[in-house]
Amino acid sequence: MKLIYFDNAATSHYKPFCVKLSFLKTLIKSANAGRGGHKLSIENSMLIWKTREKIAKYFGNIEPENVIFTKNCTEALNLVLQGLAKKKKGNVVCSCFEHNSVLRPLSELEKEGKISLTIIYPENKQFITVNDVKKNIKKDTFLVCVNSISNVTGNKNDYQNIGKFCNDNKILFLLDNAQGVGHIKVDMKKDHINFLTFSGHKGFLTPQGIGCLCINSQELPRPIIFGGTGTESDNLMQPLTPPESFESGTQSTSLIYSLFSGINYIEKHFVKINKKINDLSKYLYDNLKNNKNLTIYTKNYENGVISFNINGYDSIQVCEFLDKNYNIATRGGLHCAPLTHKFYNTTKIGMVRVSLSFKNTKKELNILLSAISDLIKNKQKI
Amino acid sequence: MKLIYFDNAATSHYKPFCVKLSFLKTLIKSANAGRGGHKLSIENSMLIWKTREKIAKYFGNIEPENVIFTKNCTEALNLVLQGLAKKKKGNVVCSCFEHNSVLRPLSELEKEGKISLTIIYPENKQFITVNDVKKNIKKDTFLVCVNSISNVTGNKNDYQNIGKFCNDNKILFLLDNAQGVGHIKVDMKKDHINFLTFSGHKGFLTPQGIGCLCINSQELPRPIIFGGTGTESDNLMQPLTPPESFESGTQSTSLIYSLFSGINYIEKHFVKINKKINDLSKYLYDNLKNNKNLTIYTKNYENGVISFNINGYDSIQVCEFLDKNYNIATRGGLHCAPLTHKFYNTTKIGMVRVSLSFKNTKKELNILLSAISDLIKNKQKI
Repeated sequence: MKLIYFDNAATSHYKPFCVKLSFLKTLIKSANAGRGGHKLSIENSMLIWKTREKIAKYFGNIEPENVIFTKNCTEALNLVLQGLAKKKKGNVVCSCFEHNSVLRPLSELEKEGKISLTIIYPENKQFITVNDVKKNIKKDTFLVCVNSISNVTGNKNDYQNIGKFCNDNKILFLLDNAQGVGHIKVDMKKDHINFLTFSGHKGFLTPQGIGCLCINSQELPRPIIFGGTGTESDNLMQPLTPPESFESGTQSTSLIYSLFSGINYIEKHFVKINKKINDLSKYLYDNLKNNKNLTIYTKNYENGVISFNINGYDSIQVCEFLDKNYNIATRGGLHCAPLTHKFYNTTKIGMVRVSLSFKNTKKELNILLSAISDLIKNKQKI
Repeated sequence: MKLIYFDNAATSHYKPFCVKLSFLKTLIKSANAGRGGHKLSIENSMLIWKTREKIAKYFGNIEPENVIFTKNCTEALNLVLQGLAKKKKGNVVCSCFEHNSVLRPLSELEKEGKISLTIIYPENKQFITVNDVKKNIKKDTFLVCVNSISNVTGNKNDYQNIGKFCNDNKILFLLDNAQGVGHIKVDMKKDHINFLTFSGHKGFLTPQGIGCLCINSQELPRPIIFGGTGTESDNLMQPLTPPESFESGTQSTSLIYSLFSGINYIEKHFVKINKKINDLSKYLYDNLKNNKNLTIYTKNYENGVISFNINGYDSIQVCEFLDKNYNIATRGGLHCAPLTHKFYNTTKIGMVRVSLSFKNTKKELNILLSAISDLIKNKQKI
């Protein structure tokens, strides 16, 4: 049975040729960027700088030195959350739709007494609005953190109005854009976003191992990882100038340059890719929405994520059934976002998440739909 | 002019075919390890586990779950240094030969009042002995940190006896093995090493972006990065069970599995590789040692690193001359190890570091030797 991969919100399965080629081409010229003065080292540094410039432009013309490379989105989020808590005291507001990459650092900071934490549960039951934020802000709130798109439901939060509100009230705003890249275009300046994080391996189709923090703020976090930066080597204390201050140790030219190519690819094909994803999502959504045996949690299906449960079944059971009998890869359980499931009352059973790529086909969706029908009609034991 | 790459202590230039192939093969099966239950996710998890097992065995049969993947050696060092300082109070001893990846986190912890820091300067002027450690231990020392091989001089510290001493005195011992991998074989159990760190891109010939912490200790550091682990997803606090506790966010199956292949390659060719490096190093050393215009800082040339200065020249000037006129890549300056240079009184001029690979040749060394002669004889303006 041919693999049907519907787990693209975890990691994209398809990697474009140009991304792989960029990775391999840099390997042929392997050297340490920013550390030596020889030609090859400089060539590596230039590829990294070129990628900073591309990302800076892509997210609304921020400064290239404010593009920080990390190993994944989680590290980028920790840099902001832990780094700001080193210099600011007070309250942090985040939404119940956040991933553990936000909830766990914030819970740790709260436990250590460094911040107080407020969690927003949305009034409309689906996504976070600026009114939700307004109602939850405290006098000492210094940071609001919301994701652009939920990794569980695919629903989009109203980050643009939240950004404007935060800016008007001199509160810093962090957007976790892990699920947004490749699907929505974010302009950090226009949308008043101070910190934006993402990884390469989801919407930008790179190998795993590369993430990024973009900064559009005069206020910088303090570093949380310390080490060699190739700058001020005689200084035993960490330099405080970005990007080096946040990038201790050897950086991966190959992964960084593959991110360059991934973004290039997405820029070039953005309309086509997203039209395809929207069409496929709509097709799947339309074929599920009237099925009385299902509970659907997704509202904004256009981002390629549709989450549901088949009444009477645990999500993990359903995913195992799909995998075993149809070679369909989906994701059940809690998706590392426990409060989302608390909110939807699905902590016990989780959700079945189908997350699409533009490389998927209607034929694959039909196989999924018939698998779901089979399961329901025949009340299959699984 | 063909490139002559003598900067292998920064990043290995040569990457074996098997390493590249492993990277690409995993990309074809791209999925998120440890996150989903479908076949492809499990296949990714198994490749990661297989790599943990290989590394655990390689460093003396430690437990595979105590093999922690990081983005580089610096992150691995921070995990131990910052993570232990979260639960233990007292003194930390390290050597003057440490890299900024050790000196900077320790300096930060000292500044924050979390530890006191003692720096060892060796009596024999060349490497750290167990007596140096004995003399510098305080009553409240809970950790000793020394590298196996200096990244500046290539000299080897007496880590085996230091390990035994630490074990006898119930002091934890951290070995920074960044420059050791590929050159020396370390057995964490026999040599009483509690924590060992390394990266893939130097002696194990992988792409950049992967490092590792190996733990042989009942006492575990506290996590310093928090996020999704694919375990205990309903728990807002970071799980404390390794390896997941230290590996928040998506891991890079491709990089991890390329490390598997890199270690395989080194295991298979260890004797041959190191014989070649030793022969080349000896040849270079023998041809430099009687040159009165040079100051050589290296004693243990067999590890492929030879550092020197040409009297009257700044190291950066020499490296630029070699690069520009002969396309020879070496590394000048401070090599992110400021106290080593303070010790050798080379903070102003740095050192010229030549670091060899088994892929280098005598012919290349002869070009370097003639370049050095030219520079000295003709008192070239550079």
